[in-house]
Amino acid sequence: MTGIISHDGEKRLVVVSGRAHTELAESVAEELGIELVPTTAYDFANGEIYTRFGESVRGADAFVLQSHASPVINKWIMEQLLMVDALKRASAKTITVVAPFYGYARQDKKSRGREPISARLLADMFKTAGADRIMSVDLHTSQIQGFFDGPVDHLWAMPILVDYVRTRVDLTNVTVVSPDAGRIRVAEQWAAKLGGGPLAFVHKTRDVRTANKAVANRVVGDVEGRSCVLVDDLIDTAGTISEAVRVLKEAGAKDVIVAATHGILSEPAVGRLSSCGVREVVITDTLPVEEEKRFEQLTVLSIAPLIARAIREVFDDGSVTSLFDGNA
Amino acid sequence: MTGIISHDGEKRLVVVSGRAHTELAESVAEELGIELVPTTAYDFANGEIYTRFGESVRGADAFVLQSHASPVINKWIMEQLLMVDALKRASAKTITVVAPFYGYARQDKKSRGREPISARLLADMFKTAGADRIMSVDLHTSQIQGFFDGPVDHLWAMPILVDYVRTRVDLTNVTVVSPDAGRIRVAEQWAAKLGGGPLAFVHKTRDVRTANKAVANRVVGDVEGRSCVLVDDLIDTAGTISEAVRVLKEAGAKDVIVAATHGILSEPAVGRLSSCGVREVVITDTLPVEEEKRFEQLTVLSIAPLIARAIREVFDDGSVTSLFDGNA
Amino acid sequence: MTGIISHDGEKRLVVVSGRAHTELAESVAEELGIELVPTTAYDFANGEIYTRFGESVRGADAFVLQSHASPVINKWIMEQLLMVDALKRASAKTITVVAPFYGYARQDKKSRGREPISARLLADMFKTAGADRIMSVDLHTSQIQGFFDGPVDHLWAMPILVDYVRTRVDLTNVTVVSPDAGRIRVAEQWAAKLGGGPLAFVHKTRDVRTANKAVANRVVGDVEGRSCVLVDDLIDTAGTISEAVRVLKEAGAKDVIVAATHGILSEPAVGRLSSCGVREVVITDTLPVEEEKRFEQLTVLSIAPLIARAIREVFDDGSVTSLFDGNA
Amino acid sequence: MTGIISHDGEKRLVVVSGRAHTELAESVAEELGIELVPTTAYDFANGEIYTRFGESVRGADAFVLQSHASPVINKWIMEQLLMVDALKRASAKTITVVAPFYGYARQDKKSRGREPISARLLADMFKTAGADRIMSVDLHTSQIQGFFDGPVDHLWAMPILVDYVRTRVDLTNVTVVSPDAGRIRVAEQWAAKLGGGPLAFVHKTRDVRTANKAVANRVVGDVEGRSCVLVDDLIDTAGTISEAVRVLKEAGAKDVIVAATHGILSEPAVGRLSSCGVREVVITDTLPVEEEKRFEQLTVLSIAPLIARAIREVFDDGSVTSLFDGNA
Amino acid sequence: MTGIISHDGEKRLVVVSGRAHTELAESVAEELGIELVPTTAYDFANGEIYTRFGESVRGADAFVLQSHASPVINKWIMEQLLMVDALKRASAKTITVVAPFYGYARQDKKSRGREPISARLLADMFKTAGADRIMSVDLHTSQIQGFFDGPVDHLWAMPILVDYVRTRVDLTNVTVVSPDAGRIRVAEQWAAKLGGGPLAFVHKTRDVRTANKAVANRVVGDVEGRSCVLVDDLIDTAGTISEAVRVLKEAGAKDVIVAATHGILSEPAVGRLSSCGVREVVITDTLPVEEEKRFEQLTVLSIAPLIARAIREVFDDGSVTSLFDGNA
Amino acid sequence: MTGIISHDGEKRLVVVSGRAHTELAESVAEELGIELVPTTAYDFANGEIYTRFGESVRGADAFVLQSHASPVINKWIMEQLLMVDALKRASAKTITVVAPFYGYARQDKKSRGREPISARLLADMFKTAGADRIMSVDLHTSQIQGFFDGPVDHLWAMPILVDYVRTRVDLTNVTVVSPDAGRIRVAEQWAAKLGGGPLAFVHKTRDVRTANKAVANRVVGDVEGRSCVLVDDLIDTAGTISEAVRVLKEAGAKDVIVAATHGILSEPAVGRLSSCGVREVVITDTLPVEEEKRFEQLTVLSIAPLIARAIREVFDDGSVTSLFDGNA
Repeated sequence: MTGIISHDGEKRLVVVSGRAHTELAESVAEELGIELVPTTAYDFANGEIYTRFGESVRGADAFVLQSHASPVINKWIMEQLLMVDALKRASAKTITVVAPFYGYARQDKKSRGREPISARLLADMFKTAGADRIMSVDLHTSQIQGFFDGPVDHLWAMPILVDYVRTRVDLTNVTVVSPDAGRIRVAEQWAAKLGGGPLAFVHKTRDVRTANKAVANRVVGDVEGRSCVLVDDLIDTAGTISEAVRVLKEAGAKDVIVAATHGILSEPAVGRLSSCGVREVVITDTLPVEEEKRFEQLTVLSIAPLIARAIREVFDDGSVTSLFDGNA
Repeated sequence: MTGIISHDGEKRLVVVSGRAHTELAESVAEELGIELVPTTAYDFANGEIYTRFGESVRGADAFVLQSHASPVINKWIMEQLLMVDALKRASAKTITVVAPFYGYARQDKKSRGREPISARLLADMFKTAGADRIMSVDLHTSQIQGFFDGPVDHLWAMPILVDYVRTRVDLTNVTVVSPDAGRIRVAEQWAAKLGGGPLAFVHKTRDVRTANKAVANRVVGDVEGRSCVLVDDLIDTAGTISEAVRVLKEAGAKDVIVAATHGILSEPAVGRLSSCGVREVVITDTLPVEEEKRFEQLTVLSIAPLIARAIREVFDDGSVTSLFDGNA
Repeated sequence: MTGIISHDGEKRLVVVSGRAHTELAESVAEELGIELVPTTAYDFANGEIYTRFGESVRGADAFVLQSHASPVINKWIMEQLLMVDALKRASAKTITVVAPFYGYARQDKKSRGREPISARLLADMFKTAGADRIMSVDLHTSQIQGFFDGPVDHLWAMPILVDYVRTRVDLTNVTVVSPDAGRIRVAEQWAAKLGGGPLAFVHKTRDVRTANKAVANRVVGDVEGRSCVLVDDLIDTAGTISEAVRVLKEAGAKDVIVAATHGILSEPAVGRLSSCGVREVVITDTLPVEEEKRFEQLTVLSIAPLIARAIREVFDDGSVTSLFDGNA
Repeated sequence: MTGIISHDGEKRLVVVSGRAHTELAESVAEELGIELVPTTAYDFANGEIYTRFGESVRGADAFVLQSHASPVINKWIMEQLLMVDALKRASAKTITVVAPFYGYARQDKKSRGREPISARLLADMFKTAGADRIMSVDLHTSQIQGFFDGPVDHLWAMPILVDYVRTRVDLTNVTVVSPDAGRIRVAEQWAAKLGGGPLAFVHKTRDVRTANKAVANRVVGDVEGRSCVLVDDLIDTAGTISEAVRVLKEAGAKDVIVAATHGILSEPAVGRLSSCGVREVVITDTLPVEEEKRFEQLTVLSIAPLIARAIREVFDDGSVTSLFDGNA
Repeated sequence: MTGIISHDGEKRLVVVSGRAHTELAESVAEELGIELVPTTAYDFANGEIYTRFGESVRGADAFVLQSHASPVINKWIMEQLLMVDALKRASAKTITVVAPFYGYARQDKKSRGREPISARLLADMFKTAGADRIMSVDLHTSQIQGFFDGPVDHLWAMPILVDYVRTRVDLTNVTVVSPDAGRIRVAEQWAAKLGGGPLAFVHKTRDVRTANKAVANRVVGDVEGRSCVLVDDLIDTAGTISEAVRVLKEAGAKDVIVAATHGILSEPAVGRLSSCGVREVVITDTLPVEEEKRFEQLTVLSIAPLIARAIREVFDDGSVTSLFDGNA
Repeated sequence: MTGIISHDGEKRLVVVSGRAHTELAESVAEELGIELVPTTAYDFANGEIYTRFGESVRGADAFVLQSHASPVINKWIMEQLLMVDALKRASAKTITVVAPFYGYARQDKKSRGREPISARLLADMFKTAGADRIMSVDLHTSQIQGFFDGPVDHLWAMPILVDYVRTRVDLTNVTVVSPDAGRIRVAEQWAAKLGGGPLAFVHKTRDVRTANKAVANRVVGDVEGRSCVLVDDLIDTAGTISEAVRVLKEAGAKDVIVAATHGILSEPAVGRLSSCGVREVVITDTLPVEEEKRFEQLTVLSIAPLIARAIREVFDDGSVTSLFDGNA
């Protein structure tokens, strides 16, 4: 039988994967030293998904991994929900939804009346389907943890990104930059990890002194002659981030490295990033990065070791918090 | 404000629609003499759906119509779920999910171990999102009514189909045929409605007397020289149904009319049906029938009047059962 | 302490039984090599049931067995619900409802408006009382699995029945017959297991050619001179089944064996069956077969080994599906 | 259509009844000036209940009346549950369970380990089936109100009983007596209503001064030469109550009247009561009192006016509390 | 790591404590031979509570102990709820709420209309927060067990109290007294344990023979010259109990010992008790007894050994019932 | 009867209030032109709360107002929960929790492992008690809307504050300042409302160039010679905000106005604010501002008109969103 059996034979860990990002699932399994549970999954002619596990999961601690990848993100979410239902009905002992990138995370509140709160709906649907726990990486806002009625293991990619960036810059001449006003706290954490250097952010503003002047981006903070590390949780179409790179360069930045956990890289992200003057764009593989999305300046770090270690801690009743010095 | 206000001003009926089958929604609204609630809906770059209603639905009896159309059926289901969530959070008084074709209805049991029961999961997710009631047409099996914890208004298209077919055949020379063994009960109901003529079904069999003989289809029942009405609830790729037409013709049937509620018509249904020798294929528009799916022998009847009447009965606290002589 | 303790002392399996069918419970316990948990159960003067377990069940995997036997079926269902509640409040770790015959299974949909869906209500009530899982044999329709929000271990008696019938007939001259149009799929499965012979069914029809002719039963398919095996899931008053035997004999059948999982055998089943010309009636003991229900042609096979094996697989986190070659 | 329509046509009250105590239901309907909703209900051969309403209840405030009568109390409870499910699925707006006598009320706690708390289970099952509210008369303990997650309209028969008893005794010479130590509070309320006379109770005791003396009943309080009113909530087999009458007579009571709300009157209650020397036994008809249970000293008061008034207050959004001077 | 690890390493018991009664928690931990899980807990400036566990509780069987002590009882209840939530989100395997004194237990029913049933609300809130089980000592009424949807381990302090009292009185000359009519059953149990002596109770009455005479307390039963043991579940302001002592003394009692489980001892309990003539007041430390509440006649028995044994039985899947000779 | 009756007599609006902030409740009632429902509420000796409504609320749309005021915030939350429970059990038709200041809103995520998510727990407890909807003003983070499973009417005090501040400053010389990096988005909205002027924020930093230099606050943005409006959602101990005022003055600000919705004003807020050099502190009365908290520079605006209008829109099925130009 597939999976890890605890030393006394009482517990069994299995990992199943949807079809959205099988490379990542394979890597996680490899890190754990196991095989994925063999799984049949295909689409019927009208788009309905069929899925079935090839061996018994009765009594197992099951981790069902699916990254909510574009462009058919709704299909991958549904596939994961169906797999959770199948695990529940097949008598898995516990079911952990592993969503390295959690879809609809940006719809975490009503910005205006009569909108859904889609990130909460997702959490509720996973609960309804049978999930006991959710594991995810760098949720768009931490409050999403509170959307699920149960434990959420919230992993941070920042240590992985920071460790890499630290090797690429002169720490005495670094400014950490937030691409907009809303994410300065994360930049603060980066700055602390990179040695406590100064902070800056890009601010969309309307110049009040000149009438009828259109909106423009301004850098608030000290960047001239400095290596800038522009940090964000995700890169979707890269409009804001590539504009921020441009503004930083105009403001005299020596060079700019972009670091983000989730590389959605929707059209026209690749064009924008490769031509905006950025020195390097560092992401992880929480989402699949297809060949056509890979450009010269792009570096993709593997998230698999982190996920594998977290799964192992959960299975062994260890501490996921300990992976992050007590902060997760 | 959009919708119907009850005579004393206490109640308000509104209909909102997803993007899967707007023609049907418009027709239903027209039958009701109202406008659809203006709704914004579009996809973000990574495929996440955004939806928002353009006017207040507070206190309204809301009907949210979406047909689970192919090929992006999971997207349309998710859109409907998000709209239900938005209605709930916008204080609609009651929320009725109108799914003329209910997706995943064929996954209504575990045929083998470790499968999901997807049709139940759908019902639970609609409940979780906030639905009070489900309205659908010709569910694949009636037991699906029992998957939802609340009222299900189960509409029957059969009267519409029968009324039409009755004008196309000589009732004294009709045999109603089931395309396989599993749906003979429906054929029995058709036969009763068409005057009580004989019944037949097509049976997949292996000839035991000749070794190594492959599977073949056989007609069980009397069809020679008779007009056959081949009935089913849906036509997907039309493999079974076009093969049944062929077998019936070989068995001496005078001609064959196919009648089904839901025209999914996935590839290669159009090719199969237009070349199998069928005289006419009669469906309703519970699902959109795009221009490229329309072929010479196809007749599409409108389901909108039935849905509109049912919505009106629900709103007026009338009887949906009465629409079907007490049988729904 | 009663029950099975796992090799490392961490898990304990216990079986408790209601009063409806204690012989079966004793047989299951014997197959498992254990004693039933001593249980007090009696009726108060006004019919209220009192039940209490005689020893601790804290932390145990409890299986509570009750067959929903006639004629006081509601009493037995209530007793099982009370026992589940008592197990929950006594801190059993998991609770599996074992209902070899699941009551109200025939009320699995609304055939007409304003009916309950009683089979769903039962599933919900067991969930409410505290059941984690349901185990049953040959549910009237497979969709009932979807009525329970959790795992359902659906056992099939067919292998037991087929193995017996195979010893009683000449496999080269067998026709499998469905007593009505609605259960032909099961007959197809039987036919496949018995070597792929032909199939037939009995069809209630109104002869359209002769006016005012009453309803009659007709055999559709080839039965003349052949041994017929008439299959159904249950035999209640035996009206349909004994009439089918008669029709088959009239149509020239050599002899008829009736095979069914559940022998309810309500009045006047015994009279009808013993006088209809059947060669043998084969059932299992999912329901008690009292002395007065036993007639000459009746054969009762034991279901206890199957239930015991399934309980053991559940306890050992094995595979119930494997008991049926991956099909359950 | 059956029922009461509110003056503006927005609301409709309907009463449906199970088969346990149709006389009471008819009386309640008559008090309300309406007909009961025509309902089909019968037993299948194996004891399963079939029930269906004869007209639409969509949008109605439905009250489903069933007294949990002996001896087939579990059947009547199940029938009421099925009717609630049918009302829910038929789109009733609100569903009130009216159980004049609430079954299993005496099983309201665990007296010993591994017992169920049956009264709570009942409340949960009614909730699961779809009940919004429960209405009952003189629950065995008031805490049962807290078993239901929703409003409980708890009616008191005491005013009806007191009004009658007041006409039968000399108020200056009355002692109210509790048949055991556990129900003295109710006796206190009776005493207050009957003018504040003295109180007594019967106490089961073991005489410590004489070794090996068996348990005996003693009267605690002043009864000699006085008219005693022995009060309880229900009379089941009448063992305790008839013994109490005997003890009171021995202690010199002038005469004894027994007053209780619920007359279960299980065997051998009638024999015991008619021969114990009681002057009169006063009960209400919350439970059916069949002809064979009626004995010379028995007086049955009608509870229908109280239930009808409470139903009306609920429907009109009035106050049930006001029926009892703010105390219910 | 803190706590008890089962012999095979599969299970871990941890005890966490709120701030209401840390002495008791320490004693329980000591009895179990463990340390409490280190926990941070403090109040923010506006009174909001902050709480966090200092080490991992993943996979542990967690017992969270908090006595609902006065005067800030709502704060302590909220703190316990927050700790349960934190345990749930930190992946504890099971969570048992240990509330030696369960707050709001006296609000267990609606005495009048439009009151809450606060004791039920508490049970539901603990369930919502994530509690799997409740453990408490001498609930005000046993029905509160039925308010929680899950197992309730109901411990009895009576054996501890009785064992002590037995050493303080001459068993041949003892009368057990209930302070009012409502709790005579408990007095009956005491009497049985103390050798079956006579019973008495204090009855609030209005003398009917003298008009306009105010309410007075009367002793019902035989107390003259006897040692009286006045028993109750709790002592709050001690109004009823000190008045009862006085009445007993007036009625000729030789001396009076008061025994109660919960010593709330709100103002002015200490003054009343120390001056009412009682010989001794015996309570347990389910609630903290601060220095200023200790008076000469007060004896406080430790409840910690009982709670520790019960926790151990729960963890070991033993029997809590067995601690009380099968009666809990 | 108290409250507003709709024109056709079908609906009734009632407002009940806890004891935390009765002035606000009175003001809201006055704005609505009604009386509060007379309510009894007091504390028992041990701190347990008793609450009861003085008249029937059956069928009413009930709004239960309680501000979660310090220092006994847990008591006020519990009182509101008890009132919701009482409304549910008294058959209110809908229950809206009105919490102008929502307690525990700052505990909306796990900042570190093993913390509760208290704001979610609160939402769940209100749901459990029976709340259908929550209404609050300026939640600490908008994501809290997603913590409640149902509609949340999220009111904004900003228009009230902005309208007042606009009369106090020269709009051509204003800089809006955020007291820390985390709330710059709100400052952006303020800036837009005040005419689009520049933005600044105060940033806690460690000077990397000088070793061992302690943390200091720096202003990022242009404030010299300008009127600064320092904005926040709440003022608790005023440490951050008074330090920000000081830093702004040091950086050359002409003057500083502080504007915040919720004035918690815990010790030592009053001392800090009155001595920090601020020109004016503007808050609303979502929380009670006792006499001793009022200092010279403090201005308190009334929130009652906004709450009253929102309640009225909810009752009339109007639009709360419309109160904020479609943005709420």
